[in-house]
Amino acid sequence: MFDRVWLNASLATMTGDGLGIVEDGAIATRGEAIAWVGPRAALPGPAAETHDCGGAWILPGLIDCHTHLVFGGDRAAEFERRLGGVSYEQISREGGGILSTVSDTRAADEAALFDAALPRLDALLAEGVTTIEIKSGYGLEVATEARMLRVARALGAAREVTVRTSLLAAHAVPPEFAGRQGDYMRHVIEHILPATADLADAVDGFCDRIGFTAAETDALFQAADALGLRVKLHADQLCDLGGAALAAAHGALSADHLEHSNPGGFAAMAAAGTIAVLLPGAGYFIRETHHPDIAAMRATGVRMALASDINPGSCPARSLLLMLNLGCTLYRLTVAEALRGVTCEAAAALGLADRGRLEAGLRCDLALFRINRPAELCYWIGGNPNAGRVVAGRPA
Amino acid sequence: MFDRVWLNASLATMTGDGLGIVEDGAIATRGEAIAWVGPRAALPGPAAETHDCGGAWILPGLIDCHTHLVFGGDRAAEFERRLGGVSYEQISREGGGILSTVSDTRAADEAALFDAALPRLDALLAEGVTTIEIKSGYGLEVATEARMLRVARALGAAREVTVRTSLLAAHAVPPEFAGRQGDYMRHVIEHILPATADLADAVDGFCDRIGFTAAETDALFQAADALGLRVKLHADQLCDLGGAALAAAHGALSADHLEHSNPGGFAAMAAAGTIAVLLPGAGYFIRETHHPDIAAMRATGVRMALASDINPGSCPARSLLLMLNLGCTLYRLTVAEALRGVTCEAAAALGLADRGRLEAGLRCDLALFRINRPAELCYWIGGNPNAGRVVAGRPA
Ligand SMILES: [Zn+2]
Ligand SMILES: [Zn+2]
Repeated sequence: MFDRVWLNASLATMTGDGLGIVEDGAIATRGEAIAWVGPRAALPGPAAETHDCGGAWILPGLIDCHTHLVFGGDRAAEFERRLGGVSYEQISREGGGILSTVSDTRAADEAALFDAALPRLDALLAEGVTTIEIKSGYGLEVATEARMLRVARALGAAREVTVRTSLLAAHAVPPEFAGRQGDYMRHVIEHILPATADLADAVDGFCDRIGFTAAETDALFQAADALGLRVKLHADQLCDLGGAALAAAHGALSADHLEHSNPGGFAAMAAAGTIAVLLPGAGYFIRETHHPDIAAMRATGVRMALASDINPGSCPARSLLLMLNLGCTLYRLTVAEALRGVTCEAAAALGLADRGRLEAGLRCDLALFRINRPAELCYWIGGNPNAGRVVAGRPA
Repeated sequence: MFDRVWLNASLATMTGDGLGIVEDGAIATRGEAIAWVGPRAALPGPAAETHDCGGAWILPGLIDCHTHLVFGGDRAAEFERRLGGVSYEQISREGGGILSTVSDTRAADEAALFDAALPRLDALLAEGVTTIEIKSGYGLEVATEARMLRVARALGAAREVTVRTSLLAAHAVPPEFAGRQGDYMRHVIEHILPATADLADAVDGFCDRIGFTAAETDALFQAADALGLRVKLHADQLCDLGGAALAAAHGALSADHLEHSNPGGFAAMAAAGTIAVLLPGAGYFIRETHHPDIAAMRATGVRMALASDINPGSCPARSLLLMLNLGCTLYRLTVAEALRGVTCEAAAALGLADRGRLEAGLRCDLALFRINRPAELCYWIGGNPNAGRVVAGRPA
């Protein structure tokens, strides 16, 4: 006797290399876990509770593995001014850009950050998201970095969703360390990291021309290694500093962005099991014409995930489904690559071995969609065909 | 005594050249019309019914002035195959592309077309749309073109929305006229147009390398003129055939796309009062890097609207808000240009003088949004801050 069974559905299980489609399938649970998956006709027994999906498609619950969901303020006014012809330099001189978000985030208390982030989270959940990563990185000081991480975990407690937190204190140099980037990285390593380690599931960095150097990032990762924290990296977004290989050398969960990474970096990532997280929303919004080298990724066998990167500066995107379309349209991902990128590969990018596929023994997180084929999730621009979520075996 | 008043709101009236902002404003109605707009403190009298907007922003109801909302099937499978490496030529040889949509649309009865289009319409209404244009163009024969137009009008009767229909029989050459494009245009003019004229509010065409010639389009427009129908045109999307100037010469309501139009065409449009309808979703989806010449449009003073172009082939977009972001991101429209493009200028593109602004005497179609400033409607990618619609003076 199963606890629950979902039937009259087509399944995209993500087992094997492709979508792992089962037509007219069934999923049966015991407790929080999937107990059985397969063709309905082969379902081995009854369940206490039966859910008729009315012909919907079931995918593993979607996973957004790279977000900056928690922040104070927004940058809509800055966007408006830039469209009106004001230069980025002028806006920076006036304290705009990321430092305005740092300032707004520092000024916001826990309740204000929570209230601002919750509708953004709800928009993602409404599309079928059941797991989300949330980074800090707009505090750049102990108190605010910790507050961001606490808010991230509070969001996970307030909704039926798993939240994984990443400490991104090495996101930018705060004003009080202006001109002393190396000193700030030492401050991160000696003060912020130890003080917030218990609030973070991983440590993230930003290795780039306008971020930190490879040597600084390496020191950060050594400190994270010493604390037993897994790492991930914003790598090579604007130029190639060897971020992909550096991440791989530290056994990073993921290296993200990768617009300018070289094939050697991808080969190192593939060998290390480091996932490549693609963020086409950011490429779109900042009008980056240099796309990540997907052909080289495919050739090296590095595994690709896809995420929203929601953040107020370079990607104010409140939709993961839209990233499927952006990834396919701009980067020419296949439908299977895109959909695996927000399920099984995204789970790997978070180090979560218990989800991302429809498979007996895994946690039963599901996303149901009213569509005729999985490709529709990539094809439509806007709109939301989600028809429900299941979290840990229960309708959410 | 007014019938209804909306207050505790900021207004973007679209009067004057910009957004026409009124902080802490009020809108009062009598019947279907706006009777008074202004600062709440100056509201001249009471109303039978008062709506507290809780600090929301009110814009004129959004207008999507260019859609192909009604069609059979979709092209998600074709999208998947193309991403998998199958060439467009191969897909065309197999009957794919627009002719597969023609075939699916011809095969669908009125109820099937209605049922497929209704959720797409509802997605737009949920964003604050109160007026929508819907084209035929996937029938390419009298019966199916008429059926599409009837379905469009039935959608308008089923929901609180104004539907304006455009006959687009000159969208493509149907298979039964293959190799006889001129004969098909004569068939449109002599048979389809007269037979469907009473179902159409305007006549549309497609003047382009893969569409019809300027001479054929001119003949179509002469026939429309003779029937007293206003015209509009898919102009210069893939190359410059002088479509912008041709549309202007016929006093067209709008010329749409315009990626390859020349400044002389814009000047002619400006002089004729023909609106330039920008369709950034199509540019995005087909990865057109040649954008319309916005600087030339501004210089000539041609008025710009913005629309979804929702269609199964080149723009499966179910969101008008997303077009605001695409227009600003890809074409660098200002916030005022983008928002006027889906309100007052879109009204002009449909020849509707009774809406598109918040102004006494105009029809009271409103869209309410939970935002802090209008720029947010352009800034966010995805998500929906709509907080209600008012259609003809009544909450919808
Ligand atoms: Zn990021
Ligand atoms: Zn069109």
